[in-house]
Amino acid sequence: MDDDETIIRQALKEDLGSGDKTTDALIPVDLYGRARIYSKEPFIMAGIDIAKKTFQILDPAIEFRKFCEDGVHTDKGQCLAEVSGRVASLLKAERTALNFLQHLSGIATLTRRFVEAVKSYPVKILDTRKTTPGLRVLEKYAVRVGGGFNHRMGTYDGILIKDNHIAACGGIAEAVKRGKASAPHYMRVEVEVGSLEEVEEALESGADAILLDNMAPESIEAAVSLAEGKADLEASGGITLDTVETFAKTGIHGISIGALTHSVRAVDISMEIAI
Amino acid sequence: MDDDETIIRQALKEDLGSGDKTTDALIPVDLYGRARIYSKEPFIMAGIDIAKKTFQILDPAIEFRKFCEDGVHTDKGQCLAEVSGRVASLLKAERTALNFLQHLSGIATLTRRFVEAVKSYPVKILDTRKTTPGLRVLEKYAVRVGGGFNHRMGTYDGILIKDNHIAACGGIAEAVKRGKASAPHYMRVEVEVGSLEEVEEALESGADAILLDNMAPESIEAAVSLAEGKADLEASGGITLDTVETFAKTGIHGISIGALTHSVRAVDISMEIAI
Amino acid sequence: MDDDETIIRQALKEDLGSGDKTTDALIPVDLYGRARIYSKEPFIMAGIDIAKKTFQILDPAIEFRKFCEDGVHTDKGQCLAEVSGRVASLLKAERTALNFLQHLSGIATLTRRFVEAVKSYPVKILDTRKTTPGLRVLEKYAVRVGGGFNHRMGTYDGILIKDNHIAACGGIAEAVKRGKASAPHYMRVEVEVGSLEEVEEALESGADAILLDNMAPESIEAAVSLAEGKADLEASGGITLDTVETFAKTGIHGISIGALTHSVRAVDISMEIAI
Amino acid sequence: MDDDETIIRQALKEDLGSGDKTTDALIPVDLYGRARIYSKEPFIMAGIDIAKKTFQILDPAIEFRKFCEDGVHTDKGQCLAEVSGRVASLLKAERTALNFLQHLSGIATLTRRFVEAVKSYPVKILDTRKTTPGLRVLEKYAVRVGGGFNHRMGTYDGILIKDNHIAACGGIAEAVKRGKASAPHYMRVEVEVGSLEEVEEALESGADAILLDNMAPESIEAAVSLAEGKADLEASGGITLDTVETFAKTGIHGISIGALTHSVRAVDISMEIAI
Amino acid sequence: MDDDETIIRQALKEDLGSGDKTTDALIPVDLYGRARIYSKEPFIMAGIDIAKKTFQILDPAIEFRKFCEDGVHTDKGQCLAEVSGRVASLLKAERTALNFLQHLSGIATLTRRFVEAVKSYPVKILDTRKTTPGLRVLEKYAVRVGGGFNHRMGTYDGILIKDNHIAACGGIAEAVKRGKASAPHYMRVEVEVGSLEEVEEALESGADAILLDNMAPESIEAAVSLAEGKADLEASGGITLDTVETFAKTGIHGISIGALTHSVRAVDISMEIAI
Amino acid sequence: MDDDETIIRQALKEDLGSGDKTTDALIPVDLYGRARIYSKEPFIMAGIDIAKKTFQILDPAIEFRKFCEDGVHTDKGQCLAEVSGRVASLLKAERTALNFLQHLSGIATLTRRFVEAVKSYPVKILDTRKTTPGLRVLEKYAVRVGGGFNHRMGTYDGILIKDNHIAACGGIAEAVKRGKASAPHYMRVEVEVGSLEEVEEALESGADAILLDNMAPESIEAAVSLAEGKADLEASGGITLDTVETFAKTGIHGISIGALTHSVRAVDISMEIAI
Repeated sequence: MDDDETIIRQALKEDLGSGDKTTDALIPVDLYGRARIYSKEPFIMAGIDIAKKTFQILDPAIEFRKFCEDGVHTDKGQCLAEVSGRVASLLKAERTALNFLQHLSGIATLTRRFVEAVKSYPVKILDTRKTTPGLRVLEKYAVRVGGGFNHRMGTYDGILIKDNHIAACGGIAEAVKRGKASAPHYMRVEVEVGSLEEVEEALESGADAILLDNMAPESIEAAVSLAEGKADLEASGGITLDTVETFAKTGIHGISIGALTHSVRAVDISMEIAI
Repeated sequence: MDDDETIIRQALKEDLGSGDKTTDALIPVDLYGRARIYSKEPFIMAGIDIAKKTFQILDPAIEFRKFCEDGVHTDKGQCLAEVSGRVASLLKAERTALNFLQHLSGIATLTRRFVEAVKSYPVKILDTRKTTPGLRVLEKYAVRVGGGFNHRMGTYDGILIKDNHIAACGGIAEAVKRGKASAPHYMRVEVEVGSLEEVEEALESGADAILLDNMAPESIEAAVSLAEGKADLEASGGITLDTVETFAKTGIHGISIGALTHSVRAVDISMEIAI
Repeated sequence: MDDDETIIRQALKEDLGSGDKTTDALIPVDLYGRARIYSKEPFIMAGIDIAKKTFQILDPAIEFRKFCEDGVHTDKGQCLAEVSGRVASLLKAERTALNFLQHLSGIATLTRRFVEAVKSYPVKILDTRKTTPGLRVLEKYAVRVGGGFNHRMGTYDGILIKDNHIAACGGIAEAVKRGKASAPHYMRVEVEVGSLEEVEEALESGADAILLDNMAPESIEAAVSLAEGKADLEASGGITLDTVETFAKTGIHGISIGALTHSVRAVDISMEIAI
Repeated sequence: MDDDETIIRQALKEDLGSGDKTTDALIPVDLYGRARIYSKEPFIMAGIDIAKKTFQILDPAIEFRKFCEDGVHTDKGQCLAEVSGRVASLLKAERTALNFLQHLSGIATLTRRFVEAVKSYPVKILDTRKTTPGLRVLEKYAVRVGGGFNHRMGTYDGILIKDNHIAACGGIAEAVKRGKASAPHYMRVEVEVGSLEEVEEALESGADAILLDNMAPESIEAAVSLAEGKADLEASGGITLDTVETFAKTGIHGISIGALTHSVRAVDISMEIAI
Repeated sequence: MDDDETIIRQALKEDLGSGDKTTDALIPVDLYGRARIYSKEPFIMAGIDIAKKTFQILDPAIEFRKFCEDGVHTDKGQCLAEVSGRVASLLKAERTALNFLQHLSGIATLTRRFVEAVKSYPVKILDTRKTTPGLRVLEKYAVRVGGGFNHRMGTYDGILIKDNHIAACGGIAEAVKRGKASAPHYMRVEVEVGSLEEVEEALESGADAILLDNMAPESIEAAVSLAEGKADLEASGGITLDTVETFAKTGIHGISIGALTHSVRAVDISMEIAI
Repeated sequence: MDDDETIIRQALKEDLGSGDKTTDALIPVDLYGRARIYSKEPFIMAGIDIAKKTFQILDPAIEFRKFCEDGVHTDKGQCLAEVSGRVASLLKAERTALNFLQHLSGIATLTRRFVEAVKSYPVKILDTRKTTPGLRVLEKYAVRVGGGFNHRMGTYDGILIKDNHIAACGGIAEAVKRGKASAPHYMRVEVEVGSLEEVEEALESGADAILLDNMAPESIEAAVSLAEGKADLEASGGITLDTVETFAKTGIHGISIGALTHSVRAVDISMEIAI
């Protein structure tokens, strides 16, 4: 509903505070004009509607005409959107709108590269909870735009027993047992393991899904055989664009990548005004 | 005052929502324990007090003992802090605290590398307004921790006439004139230019500071001579770790780098529980 | 974290507005005293810590000593807690604290009666999303206190395909197919059906759990046989204290009851001041 | 102004959180349709505009056509409203809208029954401050819809000296004296008593209105004679549908009933989609 | 409860925004010291606890020792309070704390002068709803500190039929009739009139209180005779310190003065730091 | 963006709370009408759009037709605006809208008188941070409407070293030195002094601007000669309409006046309804 709006308002507030002193000093209130938003490198677009909302929350009278949709590949120099209205409003919203667009498109672009790298395999590229504080919903949206799949939105919508939970419970078997006893009937129980022995322990204790953390491709392959038809398997831990295909080849069902959201390179986008 | 707190609360909310189902299912409410936070690679620490606040906003009874301060260099495997209290609370705050720490330390680490690269020159490394929406205050703090300087916090605390303002005013001279007429007496007027001719125009019109956007080092050197004693000069535009020294050599007063905050690689940090 | 606090603050605000005119007119600011909270009928206690927070949010100097914990059965006339501090503060928080206590204990008491009614059967009493707007988290907590189990907290933490979804998809098979294709790997897919034929269709399409809506006990018994080992079954629809055992006998795994939260009778609790 | 809106937004948020996983998985974003809201038992409608707002806050493009107004009696099976628009939006708002409608209509229906039971007497049915936390304004609205009258909205808009105030002041006379000395000139002073002697004491001390708490009908009748022309009288304390007429016969001016808002049975309402 | 806190936080935010650049640049974080707050003219103190809260909301570690209470007369040069703690915190809270103190003491001082001017007469000095937006609760508190009485806090806690209501109803009699029919039993009905004829009309229609707007002292005296024992009378309309006694002499029960809160002269107060 | 809106909503809430009891009792919901807003004395209008927003936030269907703009001089009896719509809405918004209009126009009117008094001199009339808590942005807007200039919006958008900073630093020279070392390149450094000797010290230490606090006109004249071409000079401290021209004559660049915002006399404005 209005989560995007809250984030956008905060971002505008953070940039405009008690007023844009430059724009207020230079630009007549009744000057109207038009600006175009351009890509300055090729990327996968994500966030075009967030950019639109940013302009229109600042000034509902701004018209925003988009020339492409989220998910498309854009070339360098392509015009992505045209905004028109009060010039002072265009200038006030510019930086915030571009900050969203650059960050979210950065995520979608990186995700798409991972997705492309494993496209011959029936494996899902997944994100993690390693997101930028405050932006999780938007960042996970950008992952989907890039062709990835979302892992848990938070700790509230899935059971994932991690190493620290296991340490606190005293072992995988006990942790999974507790999980299966308490998990609501509409949720699976996933558990994180680090070795083939632990995979076996997880399977025996009845885990529905297993996250293989920092395991080598060969071990993962073995785990896939063990778990066949019994549990969903997911690999994670330092997997890069260079290594992702090797992991995909193991037959694993999902590969989760923290870098999709925690180490984003913004793409380059600019706005040019034309009176 | 309480801006950090607002951001931390939102981040915790985003991760915990209606409750951490795994922890609630597995961990007894009255289990107490201790966890240690480790660096998994060398970096410049930033955000240790934010991490502390994150744990303590979640559960005021948690004790957080830090073993290093923001700004120090940490080695791989170093113990950064020890947290103790209700185990369920430690687990619930873990991801959010680490997300802050990894992101802010990533910024400080990158900033420090730029600062080191130009340490023989009397030039300041500056950030920009290209920050992650919602995190500007924290990100600009991390830049300072890394040894950088902050450019404007927002549009409200400084005058910077950018290309789009100039386009809307019809030229540098007119834009600077309007700026000088309306700027409060306690602020300087800075203007963005793209060529030596524009530097001259800016100086003639009385600009107090000039941002040289995407100009080559040779032109910047010439601009430095022209502006000597008349205006503060700042370079920007695609300057990288590889090229920054070349720019520093020109005698420029400041170098602003969007990537410090818009293209951050999170550093690797983990928490390990010990009951 | 602070959800309870938000709700409590709103409830206090709603009752006190710009000030308690009676208390402000009558009670000297420096009058200190003690009050006791009594049950006026037997019930299952729920919300004692919410009552405590209510007093202490209003005035952090109030001491609240509870004489019983959530989940216990209380007799008529039992002293549940003693509060002491500024008399004016005790009077200002009284109504709001009691309103919470009466409502939540009402839920726990009703839930307990359902749980008792089926205690010889391996079946869970479940709540629904038919909760009082704004109080869902607290009401679902009270259900757990009464011995019930929570169904979904909201639409965000579980997949439940309801009649209207099926209508919009054009059939059970298609709806379950879409659900299984899009559901995150850490969630099961539950679907609502209304007849044995639909149970079969749901099982064939691979549903992990099935909600039998308004089906007669005999049909439910047949469904249990059909689904054995294949899917979790849950019954719902107008089940009362009088009929619940009949449903439990069918072998069904869960029985969900909207009335637990949508038709609550407050229990009777009062506070008596002693100067 | 926007109090309703705040409550509705919270209720939607509580149900939708980070997103309706079922609807998002199953229903195409561009599927449009229509749904009808039906009564499944006879009741007094209350909250139809709240239901409308709920749908339209979720999605302003939804059209909501109501077929009856608050206050009317509806039969079982009657179509109350038709909503049309994006099917996904209809499904997302359904539960929250119905929760409001079922709860508020439950209050109006119960109130109407009390009002009907005393319709031959010049007595007002009044609510109390025993409301569901967070919903007071809406619940008191539903009481008016049912034909009841509101007692104080909170402690801020009326003086009512209760037993605990009297205990803290050391007696009725002293309490009323303080009340009359400090009450603003635009307010009456009402005091709670429990016996005929206390009625006399209250009258002598000049109380403008008297609440007779838990007094038997005969005593109330005597109190009515005593107070004739001197003070407004109100009865309260465990008065039910079975006993209310007996109290009305005493000549009392008002009867306040906590159960109107603290022990509500939701009425049964459903929504059926039609593509 | 926390209304003051909300206002104080907003006021601090408004002054500090993204940070106090001067203090952050000049004052070491670990410099501790002391400051004293002095009156620079004689006045009636109001708001000393608000000032304390302002310092302590900014920095809970600040100690605030007050040397006088709200309501006392202070001389020029008197030390009102001593604050000690982090010097940077003292400086950051200074302006906001003084702004509250100067404004509220201004109100109390003016009120006291009116109260003194009529002290030989049994008449109350009352405020109005002509308050500074956002500060009503605090301003009305300051009026009480000065010895005045509060009229309605808002439109929600009293019935006052004003000229525009009368115009909309078509006359005093009709307006009062509607008011008496709908007013809750715990409230009086007050009506505004502008002539003796209207006083008579108001009395006949049963008004409990009458506000005489802009009527001359002689007419007010006549009104007092007419209303004797039937209604509470209040005068308003441009009454000043010079004329207030003349009005008090008429025997009127209350005199309401908009200027108490709408035309306040801040008293002069300063803070001096001592390291 | 939405700061005005927040303030207006709070002000309406403060006046209307749980509902306008008089209007709700007297005015039929479907009564439509018109009202006119009149000046009752001559003044400079400020806040007409705030008044408009106030009506329209309360009820978006209200039409507000203004007959003059902020900044114009209005005569007694002039019709400033006409509002039409639901009469109940007009009455509910009336007081809040007028409170804004009366306060802001009071500020603009006083500012204009100062501006007129020095119109023959090249000096700016400036405001201060001595504003009413919560209203700074609006009050500073009203100063501009009156022809004045804004000093800092807060501590975040300018460097001004005050007496307490100097005391904490141990002297003007040290304070200015620290300020110049840490001030961002886009800001000037202003320092407050109290004597000619301190002016010299400030100039020597390189201050960009100097605030002369409580200095006599002759000393200010001397300071102007000393600072010529080196620093911007500003006078402050108890300057009144009677004395301001004397200060203007000294050649000072700015005169800052706390009373513009801390000691405002509301102008008299009323609304009259016509059905």
